[in-house]
Amino acid sequence: MQPIRTAEIISVGTELLLGETVDTNSAFLAAELATAGIDTYWALRVGDNLERLKLALSGALERSDLVLLTGGLGPTDDDLTREAIAAVMGETPEIDAELEAWLRGRFSSLGREMPERNLKQAWLIPSAEALPNPGGTAPGWLVTHTAGDRTRLIVALPGPPRELYAMWRDHALPRLQLSGSDLYRLTLKTTGIGESHLADLLGDLLNEANPSVATYARADGVHVRVAAKDDSRARAENRAQPVVARLRSLLGDHVWGSDEDELNELIASTLRQRGLTLASAEGPSGGLLMETLAAAPDALSAYRGGVLAWAAQAMGILGMPRPAEQGHSGEELAGLMADAARETFTADFGLATFAWGRAGRPGEQAGVSEVFIALTGGTTPTFRRLEIPASDAAWQRERMTVAALHLTWAYLRRSAPAEQ
Amino acid sequence: MQPIRTAEIISVGTELLLGETVDTNSAFLAAELATAGIDTYWALRVGDNLERLKLALSGALERSDLVLLTGGLGPTDDDLTREAIAAVMGETPEIDAELEAWLRGRFSSLGREMPERNLKQAWLIPSAEALPNPGGTAPGWLVTHTAGDRTRLIVALPGPPRELYAMWRDHALPRLQLSGSDLYRLTLKTTGIGESHLADLLGDLLNEANPSVATYARADGVHVRVAAKDDSRARAENRAQPVVARLRSLLGDHVWGSDEDELNELIASTLRQRGLTLASAEGPSGGLLMETLAAAPDALSAYRGGVLAWAAQAMGILGMPRPAEQGHSGEELAGLMADAARETFTADFGLATFAWGRAGRPGEQAGVSEVFIALTGGTTPTFRRLEIPASDAAWQRERMTVAALHLTWAYLRRSAPAEQ
Repeated sequence: MQPIRTAEIISVGTELLLGETVDTNSAFLAAELATAGIDTYWALRVGDNLERLKLALSGALERSDLVLLTGGLGPTDDDLTREAIAAVMGETPEIDAELEAWLRGRFSSLGREMPERNLKQAWLIPSAEALPNPGGTAPGWLVTHTAGDRTRLIVALPGPPRELYAMWRDHALPRLQLSGSDLYRLTLKTTGIGESHLADLLGDLLNEANPSVATYARADGVHVRVAAKDDSRARAENRAQPVVARLRSLLGDHVWGSDEDELNELIASTLRQRGLTLASAEGPSGGLLMETLAAAPDALSAYRGGVLAWAAQAMGILGMPRPAEQGHSGEELAGLMADAARETFTADFGLATFAWGRAGRPGEQAGVSEVFIALTGGTTPTFRRLEIPASDAAWQRERMTVAALHLTWAYLRRSAPAEQ
Repeated sequence: MQPIRTAEIISVGTELLLGETVDTNSAFLAAELATAGIDTYWALRVGDNLERLKLALSGALERSDLVLLTGGLGPTDDDLTREAIAAVMGETPEIDAELEAWLRGRFSSLGREMPERNLKQAWLIPSAEALPNPGGTAPGWLVTHTAGDRTRLIVALPGPPRELYAMWRDHALPRLQLSGSDLYRLTLKTTGIGESHLADLLGDLLNEANPSVATYARADGVHVRVAAKDDSRARAENRAQPVVARLRSLLGDHVWGSDEDELNELIASTLRQRGLTLASAEGPSGGLLMETLAAAPDALSAYRGGVLAWAAQAMGILGMPRPAEQGHSGEELAGLMADAARETFTADFGLATFAWGRAGRPGEQAGVSEVFIALTGGTTPTFRRLEIPASDAAWQRERMTVAALHLTWAYLRRSAPAEQ
């Protein structure tokens, strides 16, 4: 078979066209395809309608070597992906005995009788191979479509993201034999520099095609992505290297990480390596800071815990004497909260977010303009005063949380032991 | 002009086809169109490529009354939405003096000189009206396309979601005069009943077309959506009513809310109405429970705060004598944590999540099978033991959090004052 060079994604489901579900599956698949060096020029969303689904599938087969469908594999009458593929292939679905046995076994292992409507999940057509679904009742289909001397592949995957991810990685991807050997990608993650300022700084680099350089504004700062293609991955990486070196020299300390790096994971793993621990106290960030710190894998060997409470109340809870707020600056109060967290949880570092008055209460930040962040316990305490524009509260909490993580990560980088 | 009945969404940007950005804009727009009673049969994603963009736009204009484009309005060479529309319309873009003045003013108000590349954001074509962008430098376009006696509309909106939302609501939607008068939708949110069991229970209701009934598995339970169309919204609602009544009788206490209801908001507003308060202590849910509780608007008049710490350590921090874990059941320990949170934060109710050993630590739950949830402070404490399959930790934390919220909301519903 000729190699797969182009792919197309069709997301199936009326809920996608009603805006009730955000289509995250196709972003996942698009990223997987890009990593494998496959070009995806089109992605489509179609409702639960047989005619439009057939039309979309026929069009995709004309344009692309590989067509990925997600969704529409459920047991109900509006799950039409199997029907559409069968119609386009000109084949008739029949119940596959092996799939039926597996499906009935699956229900009986849950102590339930299989509703007869689920039987269509055991369908196959002659050109289709079933892809196992360890997480659900809908097997996928891998269909080989030959017209003349041209072979196309159709892969139908279930809609629930967890089922889709597992089936793609464990069963679809291994069968597709995508090479992925000719693409090199690197993402540099920056902070403290806006996207427009970055564009000025990078200048002509943004206009080159191979390697290409692109910028993306993200919650944790602007990401700069370099992508190069060549005959092999090694050659692609070689091609990218001069640009990467130039980017690193232009961006300097603005770069805080790369590729899969996440602030919370860098903080957790660095603390762990140095045998240090962190605790937190927060008001306006509303628990998002501790939720983010705790979400890093194995975070809890380094992150001791946190308290959500606002301002003076937090002090009381943390067993600190309540300061007369008037006598302190916002920075000082954030520092007192951080110290209190540090002592209460017996941690090396304390990290806190504070804001005055009602603005300091999570759920009430919409008008916040001034937030204070403190990191204490190091050789010198570090502070950050943040002005946050009026906006939706969730976005404000994210801003504060990211700022607190950046403050912590910057301190840990600066204070790296000499041998590192 | 004939009324707008069908729409199509084209999301522009290579980052969407590389899976680097999840396309949330089109879900937002699809929901807006559905609310207005407009049918969206197609949604498309296209990269930053002029030929494919023109192809997509021409195709969309043949099929649909209204074409919404998002993205590709930036200042750089790969922002091609304006170019594609101009080409399909057969018109030549020119700099609009008024837009240019506005754009230069925008930059100078930021104390910056306008890069010359931004000048293309001041382009217009004869068929286009500019849509103001209060949040950015890219004005939108509203284009009227007349072929024979048929008029189509093209609306080009900026890619950044915050700019898109504002421009859509304040400038595009008012000019489109969508009626929205002929659609009625109601979503009933359930818990404690699986999607497949629900399908059995609902039977034929799921096959009807108008009103239609559909089910969606969500983190907070299965949602059942009824949609009806008729000449007017009142008639559509009338048409839906018998089905809604039947659904309510079939689903009974499984229904915990409807439409925009969220568990955390229902809990916060109900506590507030009754003058009651809540505090929390959590281990395995990793701060997500308190983050969710605090995220409800005005939550903090009812939610006093929370602690993240695992098991026995939480007791110590909360000032409770540390229980010998061996002498207690998981339920009892969760109850002790909830009581401790209640006392520490002087709240009426305490809500806690607990798990044994390392499984009780956030960030380490991947193998958790058993989580205990307790709500104390009511007339009788309530407990829930939850078995959570091995999976990714974020999903597990969400399961625990949703279960804790369901436990709390169920208690508040049961204990409603007689007059309610």
